[in-house]
Amino acid sequence: MKNFLLAMATAWLALAPAVAQQALWGGQDIVSPEIHADGTVTFRFLAPKAVKVEVMGDFLSGEGAAALKEGKDGLWEYTTPAPLAPELYSYAFIVDGLKCIDPNNVFINRDVASLTNIFIIRGGRGDLYSVNDVPHGSLTRRWYDSPTLGMTRRITVYTPPGYEKGGQRYPVFYLLHGMGGDEEAWITLGRTVQILDNLIARGLARPMIVVMTNGNAAQEAAPGESSLGLYKPGMRLPKTMDGSMESSFPDVIRFIDASYRTIAGKSGRAIAGLSMGGFHSLHISKEYPDRFDYVGLFSAAILPNEGAESPAYSNTDEKLKAQFNKKPRLYWIAIGKTDFLYKANEDFRKKLDAAGYPYTYYESEEGHIWKNWRIYLTEFVPMLFK
Amino acid sequence: MKNFLLAMATAWLALAPAVAQQALWGGQDIVSPEIHADGTVTFRFLAPKAVKVEVMGDFLSGEGAAALKEGKDGLWEYTTPAPLAPELYSYAFIVDGLKCIDPNNVFINRDVASLTNIFIIRGGRGDLYSVNDVPHGSLTRRWYDSPTLGMTRRITVYTPPGYEKGGQRYPVFYLLHGMGGDEEAWITLGRTVQILDNLIARGLARPMIVVMTNGNAAQEAAPGESSLGLYKPGMRLPKTMDGSMESSFPDVIRFIDASYRTIAGKSGRAIAGLSMGGFHSLHISKEYPDRFDYVGLFSAAILPNEGAESPAYSNTDEKLKAQFNKKPRLYWIAIGKTDFLYKANEDFRKKLDAAGYPYTYYESEEGHIWKNWRIYLTEFVPMLFK
Repeated sequence: MKNFLLAMATAWLALAPAVAQQALWGGQDIVSPEIHADGTVTFRFLAPKAVKVEVMGDFLSGEGAAALKEGKDGLWEYTTPAPLAPELYSYAFIVDGLKCIDPNNVFINRDVASLTNIFIIRGGRGDLYSVNDVPHGSLTRRWYDSPTLGMTRRITVYTPPGYEKGGQRYPVFYLLHGMGGDEEAWITLGRTVQILDNLIARGLARPMIVVMTNGNAAQEAAPGESSLGLYKPGMRLPKTMDGSMESSFPDVIRFIDASYRTIAGKSGRAIAGLSMGGFHSLHISKEYPDRFDYVGLFSAAILPNEGAESPAYSNTDEKLKAQFNKKPRLYWIAIGKTDFLYKANEDFRKKLDAAGYPYTYYESEEGHIWKNWRIYLTEFVPMLFK
Repeated sequence: MKNFLLAMATAWLALAPAVAQQALWGGQDIVSPEIHADGTVTFRFLAPKAVKVEVMGDFLSGEGAAALKEGKDGLWEYTTPAPLAPELYSYAFIVDGLKCIDPNNVFINRDVASLTNIFIIRGGRGDLYSVNDVPHGSLTRRWYDSPTLGMTRRITVYTPPGYEKGGQRYPVFYLLHGMGGDEEAWITLGRTVQILDNLIARGLARPMIVVMTNGNAAQEAAPGESSLGLYKPGMRLPKTMDGSMESSFPDVIRFIDASYRTIAGKSGRAIAGLSMGGFHSLHISKEYPDRFDYVGLFSAAILPNEGAESPAYSNTDEKLKAQFNKKPRLYWIAIGKTDFLYKANEDFRKKLDAAGYPYTYYESEEGHIWKNWRIYLTEFVPMLFK
């Protein structure tokens, strides 16, 4: 076998570029988006036959779509006229009227049944949403038994850097998604791992376990992650705001306290969620007033679905009274000025004010969007367990 | 606050469909792909202005692209003329010459810098690649220290159902990716979690830990998962076949044996990989002949890069002799008939034959494709640790 390896080295070298899967289709040899040092961004799209190429995305702030200009060899380009503020942005192209993912950007987020490309402008909050050279926590997808719902369900758990070494106990933050979401939403759209890693590394947050449940009580797991297969995700699901999430939540707490080194008491537990998850956080925390010292309502829905007759939604006034009598350390309400739930939250705050229940209020610009929920997460986490 | 919740229920109900993020763009209200009971598949694409819509994918087996036919209101359709065999397939549309992801299918795989939609035909191997109603293992992304490479690196670890309960020790299977891949490849393209869950549930595989490393020694983590940010993945990376992976591999084993309840000896360790990962498995297993009782080369590259002067590639004949003298329980070589590495593997087998080293050979149809690597995984795993 002598010199066998050496003898074939040249042949191998020539073949090396083909070593990935023999491709179904080649890629394009262009860069898009290109983020320039000054924070402007160039989008590129190769489409020699197209008549019109536009880019749309949340970086345009209401202007609709921006037209790319065709250059040499069908390469279309658009550069933002001004630097973009640090943020995680979503976009896609529209080619002769058709939405098209950027074929030169493999980073995509799914929101319910819609895919968009993402990019990050660094600095400020953009740094909090980025992977940095800091100690990293671990992220686990696993399954737990819910006897109340009669099913085994998928759950996502973040443990902070250092969890695996040593015997320290950690507080637990239960972080809930909105309607159409699942146990993946806070990881992908919410950048929870990056935000926690970065806040902990900066000394701004206490190391904590973050538990991301599936809040659709009829669902075992996110689309594609259960025996239902690779189906098209939908917005409306049964058993989302009918009391099932509230009644089954002790199953989650029991599982987490049995499986992790937790601080298994009120002072070591927080719960927060966005939209429907804010609704769940409101109702779960009042159903179990001895369980959570920290409650966060992010653009929360306040009211149950019409016709929902769960005991979780009865005697609300008395239950809120019992909850606030036990003096939770933080009851935090956040919403954007243009959120369609603004009025519902305003009314809820008036009720809390009238009853003399203390809470902290955070009002942001804009509305019912992930940009705000990421901001709320970065604001809420540093206040926990201190 | 009495009746406050009830009073607003009607208003809330009317708003419910808008509770997800205020969408950047609406979805399409069609189903694609639709998998019929007989195994035929219909692809649909809504494009009123398009002149030509085609679908391409590995279900077409070399026929190029199939044309969709335009129907009412710009809805294009194509149904396969015959049922497809059980398998995981990849596809995308070509709209007037432009590759376009199916906007009605959120399930996508990334292969290096290319995205394609996927779907699964159930039955046979299709069932092995699907999530079924069986006990599920856990999947963790975490980071480990590699003193040899001087960096902290991301790693993906599957633990089998039941791992978290009880004190049993488990064997460990190290599963390595190919060039252009990373610690995500075997999870997404390889369906490793589903394959392991299903083989274990059927009693065909022994419960085991599966460790998926990043085999690009210059890289901390997959694209988008390191401080390098959201960059376009590339095929050619430094330090992939220069001996770095081989010399640093003991760091991985040390970390896994220190972090999990492993059977920390030769009889409890397997190593296999595809293409470059098969190359790594070949060389790592011969560098550390006391470590692995099971070795799998899936469409393996055999030879180092030209000019790679690592000690890992010297004295190969003597090292292979030492390895086979220690009688590994399984040395498994698999390759497809049309793989561009077929000849290299044939020559390698001839050398093993000439030296009288026992191995098992598995030859499949087709070439250097993920379909084959999934098949090899389903064939290899049942032979381990028995």
